[in-house]
This record gives sequence, structure tokens and C-alpha cells, in this order.
Amino acid sequence: MQLKSATRTELISPFYVMAVLNRAKQLQAQGRDIIHLEIGEPDFPTSDSIIQAGIRQLKSGQIKYTPAAGLPELRQQIAEFYWQRYQVRINPQRIFITPGASGALLLALSASLNPGDELLLADPGYPCNSNFAHLLAVKPKLIPVTTSSAYQLTAQAIQAAWTAQSKGVLIASPSNPTGTIISSEQLTACINTTQALNGVFFSDEIYHGLSYGEDCVSALQISDDVFVINSFSKYFGMTGWRIGWLIVPEAAIEAVEKLTQNIFIATATNSQYAALAAFLPETLAELELRRSELQTRRDYLYNALIELGFDIPIKPNGAFYIYANASRFTDDSMQFALDLLEQQGVAITPGKDFGQYKAEQHLRFAYTTSIARMSDAIQRIHTFIKQG
Amino acid sequence: MQLKSATRTELISPFYVMAVLNRAKQLQAQGRDIIHLEIGEPDFPTSDSIIQAGIRQLKSGQIKYTPAAGLPELRQQIAEFYWQRYQVRINPQRIFITPGASGALLLALSASLNPGDELLLADPGYPCNSNFAHLLAVKPKLIPVTTSSAYQLTAQAIQAAWTAQSKGVLIASPSNPTGTIISSEQLTACINTTQALNGVFFSDEIYHGLSYGEDCVSALQISDDVFVINSFSKYFGMTGWRIGWLIVPEAAIEAVEKLTQNIFIATATNSQYAALAAFLPETLAELELRRSELQTRRDYLYNALIELGFDIPIKPNGAFYIYANASRFTDDSMQFALDLLEQQGVAITPGKDFGQYKAEQHLRFAYTTSIARMSDAIQRIHTFIKQG
Repeated sequence: MQLKSATRTELISPFYVMAVLNRAKQLQAQGRDIIHLEIGEPDFPTSDSIIQAGIRQLKSGQIKYTPAAGLPELRQQIAEFYWQRYQVRINPQRIFITPGASGALLLALSASLNPGDELLLADPGYPCNSNFAHLLAVKPKLIPVTTSSAYQLTAQAIQAAWTAQSKGVLIASPSNPTGTIISSEQLTACINTTQALNGVFFSDEIYHGLSYGEDCVSALQISDDVFVINSFSKYFGMTGWRIGWLIVPEAAIEAVEKLTQNIFIATATNSQYAALAAFLPETLAELELRRSELQTRRDYLYNALIELGFDIPIKPNGAFYIYANASRFTDDSMQFALDLLEQQGVAITPGKDFGQYKAEQHLRFAYTTSIARMSDAIQRIHTFIKQG
Repeated sequence: MQLKSATRTELISPFYVMAVLNRAKQLQAQGRDIIHLEIGEPDFPTSDSIIQAGIRQLKSGQIKYTPAAGLPELRQQIAEFYWQRYQVRINPQRIFITPGASGALLLALSASLNPGDELLLADPGYPCNSNFAHLLAVKPKLIPVTTSSAYQLTAQAIQAAWTAQSKGVLIASPSNPTGTIISSEQLTACINTTQALNGVFFSDEIYHGLSYGEDCVSALQISDDVFVINSFSKYFGMTGWRIGWLIVPEAAIEAVEKLTQNIFIATATNSQYAALAAFLPETLAELELRRSELQTRRDYLYNALIELGFDIPIKPNGAFYIYANASRFTDDSMQFALDLLEQQGVAITPGKDFGQYKAEQHLRFAYTTSIARMSDAIQRIHTFIKQG
């Protein structure tokens, strides 16, 4: 029997960082000390109040399906959170609890885009966003973005790239890998332009809350007719719980409800009950302390990388990533990453994982580990560069 | 702004039982006592050993992403389970942990079918299977099945329905809604025929383990080149944990690995650690007791429905459903279900939720509640029928 894979599996690129990770594992198994600056997951444990809420629910023994769209009380709390944080009123019926932001993105795209439609995205950007498009036979259209627009799409770029096949625009702010935040004016112009073109606007806000001295604007502050993807993974520190949410336009509620029932049945029950504790004042206080720690780490790593000779034209004010131009040292950032790992035991992510535009010149550093460890890493990178 | 939903959302039917459920909720809010025979989730709590394993993991605070394909030790345990239960050796690399069987099905179909391809399925059958096809612009081709083949596809039916666009066949055994089990011979013939036609074979085995006096054969006992969808939800009683698995042919490992990374990142960590306890001898002993309880319930409900005048040509030996022909009482089973709920407070699922073939004559009863409650329900149905 000849098993032929579906075409989409050829369009979906692997994570190049997996090659780095697999080699890192081998080296660790040999006893080498590897410093991980490639991981998109901070080293903090889940807040204790969230853990305790999860344990209380497990003790009940009743880990049954929740309604497909999620626990009503969690949808209500998210609505209240939007009022407190963004001063927008969201009908809880527009809020769907999903298995991570991944689930939210799948729902949003499948509710609104047909095979053959084009989805406009920034390059560099998070690779899974393009790959979800491929899953649905939607065509990702990568638009190179530069420091001139804070590595974000602009109304002009959207207008210029738009064709008869274009049907959607996705913006992620703060951006992975660049950590940059789109301004309120730029986001407003992007949404207005997309809607004037009769396109659907998707706002990936999963790093909201993780910003340092610059506010993140939600697309919901600008329009109700947008899809907003968010998550408990990043700011709320619940990566492994696999829980996120999607906010949809009123007109999409019925379609998204049907899709949710069919695609997921529901999100993990225990994660939903645990997430109820994410909005407690004591949890939010702890999360704010962590944000402050991340800001300190950001400042440390940013300064250290600049000192080593990396070019970082915009100080990233969000997420936990620094996207550095390494063209002073290499024109093959994948090889640079592999060599750095091999010689010095520091793992970073090659630009290739985030698109094609100047990918070979760039590297992503995550400040998801302690300053002590990052300081060791900087010493090692220094040695590596000197020898290189 | 005019928001146009994607075409697939028009192809995906809602769950008709939701109309029953919503009305049931209203009636309950008015103080009515509703007996639920529509729910595909037994009333047992999760086994305590599984709960305790979940709690231990939560106490660690380290609820981080697992590898995309799942915890290596869980994949290993599933491989061992296949050896013990089916005497087949499975390379753990072929086993992917997924967010429920839903996730497994999405991975399997997206790894192997292209837009426009046809997927052959039994009618009646589980509606989400067709709807996952619609999600990917794959065309579900529903093949009417009758008691003559235990409501399962046959090699002849596959051969007869096959066209140049046909690319896959999905069989679910034990079947939802019919509870019937495909024989080893019939399954072998279906797999051989599909493979001879160069098609991909998908085996939905999520009700395996829940069978009464008749063995369930795994497609893996017949061929390594099949996709097997399974779940911790049903036999292992872990519905709300949202954890299942997919076993893929060797040749598909790489494609499925890429898809898993991109679509899910990973399955909920705590559910994976908890599932490690599902294979403990004490857990399996408890699950066997529950199976025996379900068998007793099956016998009770089967006999009672026959006595009331429902036609059930094959005694269902699997899952926890009875698919009864109600043509003696109605030619509109949806209305029957709504009227029964309104007048007597018993909730059941209309045939319409499982396809088109003779759907108006059929109803699904789930024996997921106690015999005491079912006995009340039978009294009420008796009264309803007499008055009708």
C-alpha cells in the first residue's frame, strides 16, 4: 500500500527549531549544560491560586463535558475582564472557550474563510498562523514588514497586497517573534481598511498583558466586528493547561457554536475551572510581579545583545522575545544557531521559523529564563562570536 | 460591515438534540424533573486513581507544554496496552496523544485527504465525522447501512460507492448510535477492499472496551497501514479531560508530527499525567466493574424498549446506546422526542442527528444513567405512547 500524504502536509513547514531542540536533547543526554533561550514558555510555575482551583475541581471527581462554548461563569468573567482592562462591553455569548489559542484560531479561520481565499499576514510572524491557513486550503499571503512599521502590517501594505482572492487580515500584537506592539492609530487604520475591502479582521492578542511601558490596544476597542484570539497561556502563565478564548462578531455566534460542538466537543473541564481563579485579585497581583520580572529580564537581554553587536532597531515592549539582526555575524542564522548550540550549548531560534523575509539574518531570543542563566548565555555567545 | 460565514458552516448541521437539551434546561429551570437518556457520557465519576494522579501532577505546579506528540511514557503505555489487549506490537512513535478523539480525527483526516476527496461513512453514524470532512472541504459520502450488515459498512458497499474522487473509508465500531460491532471478517474485507482501491482506512475505536459478550477487533490487528482513532473518554471514563490518541501508519509519522505541532502545540498536560493511571491494574479492575454495570443497564433498557413496542432488530453489544425503530409510533422522530420531553420530561436523541437514512423513524437511547432512573423513564414513555 502506498500512503500518500495530503497536499497540505507538504505546504506546512516543520519547526526548524526542532532540529536545534533535538540536538540540544542529545547534548544534554551526554551531560552538556544547555541554556535554553529558544523556549516560548516562561520558567514560572502556574500561580498557586490557579493550581488550588484545579485541585478542588479534580477532588469533586466530576470531570464531565462542559457546554461546547465553555463554562458560562468563565465566559462571564472574561467579559468582565474586558470591561476592566479595555473598557469595552462584550456579550458573553460572543466568547468561546477553546483548547488554547490554537483552537481559537482554527475556529476563527474556519468560520470565515473558504478554500482558495487569501489571508494576509506579517513576515516575520508566528508560523502556525500560516499553517492553520494551509490546513483549511486558505492561502497565507506573507507581507514583509520592517522596523518602519514596528514589524506590523499597515493600512497601506494591506491595500497594496489586496487582490480579488484576499478575504482576511491577521495581526498579532505584541508580535512573536519581534515583541513589538502595534499603535492604536495603526491598528485602527488596518481594521478600517480591511473592513472597507470587505475583509475579515483577525487580531491575535495572546501576548496582551505582557507589555512593558507601552499599552496594548485590543481590536475590540476599535470594532465589534473582528475575531479576537486570546489565551491563558502567556500572561496568565497556563501554557500546559491548553486553554484560550475567541471573541467573535455577533453575526458569527451561531456558526462558531456549531463549529465548536463539532471540532472540540468542549475544552478540558479542569482547565476551565482552574482558569476561573486567574482573575482573582491575588492572582493578578502575582502576574503583575512576573510581568515586572520579565521587564527586568528584557532590559538585561536587550542591553547585553546590543553590546555584543546584534542590531535591534526597536526595543521590543511586549511578549518575551527579542528578534535580533545578526547580519554582522552571519548570513545563515540557522547554521549560526546550530553552531552556537554545538560549540557553546546555547539554544536559540533561527529566523527561518518566522517566515522568509530576511530570515537568514535574524535570530529570536526568548527571555523565559533567569538573568543568571541569561548572563551565562551572554558570556558563551561572546566567546562564540570572538572565535567565529 | 457584512460578515459572510465560510461555506463549510452551512454544510455543517447543528446537533438537533441541542433543541431537546435547551428545552430540557428551560423545563428544569421551571422545576420539572427531566430524565436524561440523550447524554453520551456515563454518570460515573472519573476513577479515583486517575484523579489522584491528576492532583499529584497539579501539586508540582509545573503544568508546562509536553512534546507535541505527547508524554513519551504515555505513548509507551498505550503501546503496551495494545500488546496486552490485542496482541499487536505498535511502535510508540506511531502513537500521538490528542485533545480527545476529535483531535485525533482532525489529525488523521488532515494528514491524508485533500479538498474535494470523498470520505465514505455509514449512515446512521456519528455526525461529527462528516462534519470534520466538511471542515477540510472533504466530501462525506454517506452510505445507508441496515441491520443486514449490523449497521456497518461492507466491502461490497465500499466497492459499489467508490468513485475516482473516493479516497477514504471510515468505520466506527462499536457504532454510535447503533451500538453494533463489526465482525473480524467484515472489518478485514473492508480494509482489504479500501486498500486495494488505494484508499485510506480510518477506524474509529473510541468505544472499544465497552462491549458485552462480543469482542471488538482493532483495525491494527488486520493492517499496520490504517489510522486508528481512540480516546480516554469512554471506556476509561475521562470525558471532560479531553484526551485521546491516534495511531498512524509508519509512513505518516512525519506529516502527523508536523500537523500536531501546528494545530495543537500539545494536549493538556495534566490530563496526560492523569491518563498514566488509567492503565493501573486497580483502575482497569474498576473499569471492568463499570462495564458490567453498563451491560446490566443495556439488558434492562433493551428489554423494556422491546416490551413498549420499539423495534430493535439487533441487540447492541457495544458502546452505551440503543438505536430503536419507533415507526410503530411516529414518522417524525424529532417531533416525538420534543413531545416526549414536553409531556413526560424524558430527553432522547432524534435519529436526524445521525444521518438521513430512515432517520425520522429512529431514536437513540443512552443507558448512561441508573436503572432506577431508566425505570421511571420507561413508565413515562409508556404513558406517553398510550396517550399518543
